[in-house]
Amino acid sequence: MSRPNAEFSLIDWFRSQASAHDRLSVGIGDDTASLRISDCNRQLVTVDMLLEGVHFRIPDVAAADIGRKALAVNLSDIAAMAGRPTAAVVSVALSRNHGTAFAKEMFTGLKTLADEFDVAIAGGDTNIWDGPSVISVTVLGEVTGSEPVLRSGARSGDWIMTTGSFGGSLLGKHFSFQPRVTEALALHETVALHAMIDVSDGLAADLHHILDESSVGAIIDEQSVPISDAVKNDKSPIERALGDGEDFELLFTVSDDDGQRLLSNQPFDVKLTKIGVITESNQCQLRNASGRMSDLPPRGWEHIF
Amino acid sequence: MSRPNAEFSLIDWFRSQASAHDRLSVGIGDDTASLRISDCNRQLVTVDMLLEGVHFRIPDVAAADIGRKALAVNLSDIAAMAGRPTAAVVSVALSRNHGTAFAKEMFTGLKTLADEFDVAIAGGDTNIWDGPSVISVTVLGEVTGSEPVLRSGARSGDWIMTTGSFGGSLLGKHFSFQPRVTEALALHETVALHAMIDVSDGLAADLHHILDESSVGAIIDEQSVPISDAVKNDKSPIERALGDGEDFELLFTVSDDDGQRLLSNQPFDVKLTKIGVITESNQCQLRNASGRMSDLPPRGWEHIF
Repeated sequence: MSRPNAEFSLIDWFRSQASAHDRLSVGIGDDTASLRISDCNRQLVTVDMLLEGVHFRIPDVAAADIGRKALAVNLSDIAAMAGRPTAAVVSVALSRNHGTAFAKEMFTGLKTLADEFDVAIAGGDTNIWDGPSVISVTVLGEVTGSEPVLRSGARSGDWIMTTGSFGGSLLGKHFSFQPRVTEALALHETVALHAMIDVSDGLAADLHHILDESSVGAIIDEQSVPISDAVKNDKSPIERALGDGEDFELLFTVSDDDGQRLLSNQPFDVKLTKIGVITESNQCQLRNASGRMSDLPPRGWEHIF
Repeated sequence: MSRPNAEFSLIDWFRSQASAHDRLSVGIGDDTASLRISDCNRQLVTVDMLLEGVHFRIPDVAAADIGRKALAVNLSDIAAMAGRPTAAVVSVALSRNHGTAFAKEMFTGLKTLADEFDVAIAGGDTNIWDGPSVISVTVLGEVTGSEPVLRSGARSGDWIMTTGSFGGSLLGKHFSFQPRVTEALALHETVALHAMIDVSDGLAADLHHILDESSVGAIIDEQSVPISDAVKNDKSPIERALGDGEDFELLFTVSDDDGQRLLSNQPFDVKLTKIGVITESNQCQLRNASGRMSDLPPRGWEHIF
């Protein structure tokens, strides 16, 4: 979901103020922070807040789906670091209008997903008020392998790959998506993941996050981008796939050898696709079926089609 | 601040649903949860959400004080476990009406306190909306010593002691209080803390939490309860001290030997006071100057005076 500019400028300001701390091995700016805490080697932590009227509308969405999503978006962030989620704490401000049945359904949606991923609900803060409903979930995770997978490790020649398909998530998938925790852990065990992110802002925007952090460029093959069924009949499916966001699929880069292996093995229920390659340039380009290149900016590229 | 009954019943329901998990060495119900996470021995985690119109009113309160308090209440919870706070994540929904200057001041208030206690700001989620402002802070901490200090360890014969004074916090202190992190860590190093809690619900109510969890009783000496200046001229200062809440002082029990030592040493700027003793009975009683005993229930005891 796109954010207003005032939010972006505030986020930048907060980041500049929340300066580096020697306890932060990965600070604000990747999918989660990674902490060094005494005997705890590397603790991942991430938070996400969902707001009534902004991220969901009642009664358009079932309470259970709201609770589920509030946890799922955080699990997706932990997955993007190839982390294993361990525990969650939940704070809520519940609108008096919706009653306690609503609150219980919301919690049940969250708890069901937590159980599915063996995540402990470690605490919470419950409030009822006259305002719209708010749910904020913080998830802790542990680093797997020797290091968390960052956005900054993409190298020229890498294959750019994804799980699943893209576009039209706001038509439904954004409440029902499966956070790619299992897939990320399995990938981290079997190949060398150079860079990874979960696609929340949009495929193009999140690709740019990897490129910016890794100081590399990319060529994306328009024809290879997997398009979600939800937008296959749209007037420009590729626009939707590149720009819509909230797909919560993994976008990652690996060596061509590892990429070949993944592509032929297809180890998951969800399909792995190669959508392009990392280049040495500082450009992000889209190559169409006839080989013509165009710039692929993070956002606002819709008019180029 | 007292909670409506609907909140209490929801909280109970959530607790019953968020069942024990083998990763939770201390689950929901103490001041913070304590987690066992692979090489991370014991990770403390706690969350608190402050709501405009419920916990603060704008412009009655400075933005910096709101941010400060949102962190401080969590630091107080970590202190109650004798933990060392390490990192915080912050999610906010900022009312469009208040503007970005307000948001920055709020963050600055929080960050100043974080720096004071060497707490890393590890991440956040920033939203601007049309609703009232909301700030949710999750704090991580590490266990010090061999175990966290729980509410459940009070023993018959223990001295009941406090830091600071009680009553009238809502007249100002609840925004400016110093979370007793330093004091809790020092106490945990020098004496055997049997049970500890931070006083947020009220001195009587939080004492009852210790008694309930420890299956013991108590006698509190009315004359020894330290009364805050804010309520010294109130018509019933002792009522205010026992019932007001949000003092965010430590309430703890130790052996009489340790208690004697603390009382004579007074190792802190803030005064340590003995306010009573733990008994074998299942009663919580208040003893007045002439030795007369009366029941001291967690709440609703005001009418007995």
